[in-house]
Amino acid sequence: MGDGAGTAQGVDAAALAARVAAGERRALARAITLVESTKPEHRAAARALLAALPATARQTAGETAGEGVRIGLTGTPGVGKSSFIERFGLMRIEAGARVAVLAVDPSSARSGGSILGDKTRMERLSRHPSAFVRPSPSGTTLGGVARRTREAVALVEAAGFDTVLVETVGVGQSETLVAELTDIFLLLIAPGGGDELQGVKRGIMEIADLVIVNKADGALKAAAEATRSDYAGALGLLRRRPGDPRGIPAAVTASAATGDGIEALWERIADLDAHRREIGRRAERRAEQAASAFDRALRDGLLEAVMADPDLSGAVAPAREAVAGGRRLPDEAAEALVAQVAARLSGRG
Amino acid sequence: MGDGAGTAQGVDAAALAARVAAGERRALARAITLVESTKPEHRAAARALLAALPATARQTAGETAGEGVRIGLTGTPGVGKSSFIERFGLMRIEAGARVAVLAVDPSSARSGGSILGDKTRMERLSRHPSAFVRPSPSGTTLGGVARRTREAVALVEAAGFDTVLVETVGVGQSETLVAELTDIFLLLIAPGGGDELQGVKRGIMEIADLVIVNKADGALKAAAEATRSDYAGALGLLRRRPGDPRGIPAAVTASAATGDGIEALWERIADLDAHRREIGRRAERRAEQAASAFDRALRDGLLEAVMADPDLSGAVAPAREAVAGGRRLPDEAAEALVAQVAARLSGRG
Repeated sequence: MGDGAGTAQGVDAAALAARVAAGERRALARAITLVESTKPEHRAAARALLAALPATARQTAGETAGEGVRIGLTGTPGVGKSSFIERFGLMRIEAGARVAVLAVDPSSARSGGSILGDKTRMERLSRHPSAFVRPSPSGTTLGGVARRTREAVALVEAAGFDTVLVETVGVGQSETLVAELTDIFLLLIAPGGGDELQGVKRGIMEIADLVIVNKADGALKAAAEATRSDYAGALGLLRRRPGDPRGIPAAVTASAATGDGIEALWERIADLDAHRREIGRRAERRAEQAASAFDRALRDGLLEAVMADPDLSGAVAPAREAVAGGRRLPDEAAEALVAQVAARLSGRG
Repeated sequence: MGDGAGTAQGVDAAALAARVAAGERRALARAITLVESTKPEHRAAARALLAALPATARQTAGETAGEGVRIGLTGTPGVGKSSFIERFGLMRIEAGARVAVLAVDPSSARSGGSILGDKTRMERLSRHPSAFVRPSPSGTTLGGVARRTREAVALVEAAGFDTVLVETVGVGQSETLVAELTDIFLLLIAPGGGDELQGVKRGIMEIADLVIVNKADGALKAAAEATRSDYAGALGLLRRRPGDPRGIPAAVTASAATGDGIEALWERIADLDAHRREIGRRAERRAEQAASAFDRALRDGLLEAVMADPDLSGAVAPAREAVAGGRRLPDEAAEALVAQVAARLSGRG
């Protein structure tokens, strides 16, 4: 690690990486703040930090990074996500796990709020020494949110958290985003009502590995079982994903209030994760996720690089305007610009 | 139009454009074949043709292009799409319209078939002088299919077809693609059964403007009405799209066999289209569609240009591999490559 990058703007990336890998919570919080920043000088430091991580993490955290499970969770407001995460997280911690909770909330840029901003939502979990609960930063673009969350996952794993929960309220494309960052995807619903009544966005069923009917206790227990059965029927009609065992996706009941079903749910998750690891599907999926994030970042970055060039960006704006006005066709206009860039690239080659 | 581009590979683009704009069917068929070709020399000719179109079309076809309505239609096999399109198309022709039917079928690359390959499916319509029915080409990538279909829409509109139907069987992301090419999106379903039973992909309901329960005749009439009512209830719970009138999205019944409901359906379509034109939403939507297609084409094209450069493509492959292997983070690796491209671009600047 060169000093130039490593100490950019007063951040000693190598030292911060070492402290993160040693599991220091304040260093971890600071590191996440750094990757969340959009300031160019912070970005340089964040890259240096992330580059310094893997080796350090391997040395000090005993190959923990990459061996844990990444769990995505979505559900509409009121379904009991916070109490579910609190119960689930504390149960895993009791079993020896270290649990990190991250949130994806692309809407918080508009609302100014954040879904985990109020840490009292999962008070016991956030105070537990084996847990790390991080409120969602205010979002900008979906791409920016994806990058930050992916990097935050890398950081908490480097710090030794082996169970990473990524929560989303499901605004816009955020479930797809979370599914692309995690190994297992959970949909939490409440008893009664159909998808429409629950505000469950269509398309989520297709990416969920497990549908959990929460609040399966007291007066709602029978209703929860009926809802579970409805969902099990619907899930049975969906195509099984390649390599997945029979019975996945599945619908189960649970109660965050009493804890009923949470242990059984974890066993389902652990079994599915173990199965996918065994057949190599988990590694394959992570590789696919990373490669596709890389491709997207490269495409976006190249466009930015072109727009940073005065001559080229001067050509893009009128072309885009002509396209929007229906005077030129999109692909023809783009092809002409690409030819210009290609000529520029080969000019020096 | 220079001779070089205009007569590339024996295609006189300006002359072909003029013949298309004059409404010559054989010229139109040939022009679509040209935009469907992936050969680089054909692509150059296609671009010249498309560039020659608007002006020519405006002169000879009386500003027709852009004034017609583009209608997307999806529905699972067996729901009666062909007979619906035939009935709907002939009815519109009787009212003085000129109807073009295009198909999007990204699956045909694999199956070797094409959903409109069998023109006997809509025999009367395809033989009618006021109709133009085009089988779907065998697909390659989704992006390629989108480009070709967008260009085919431009061509049929230039040829004076004012009602363009774009049909899809709904494989992969094809409905989204069709929705991004059209003004109004229709979902055709059969009476009875839920979404799952009908094989309706979740997510379609969110992009449909009108859900049509077909086969509302004879013994199925009551079932069709019940299904319509179910869907109307579900649609009522979806958020209304900005600017749309109350009651949209709506569910209606129709019968391709008897023609019942088809005229009323057209009135709904025409009303919605007129409303959106009035408030400027249709023009805005078309501008957004075109601009976003342009951005995608530019991103993809820039990546291709970079990959065509030996030095740069030589750097991309190992970076992508390191990312897939978890040794580097996607965005950091992409940023490093983008910096290299930016340096190269500025080298000549």
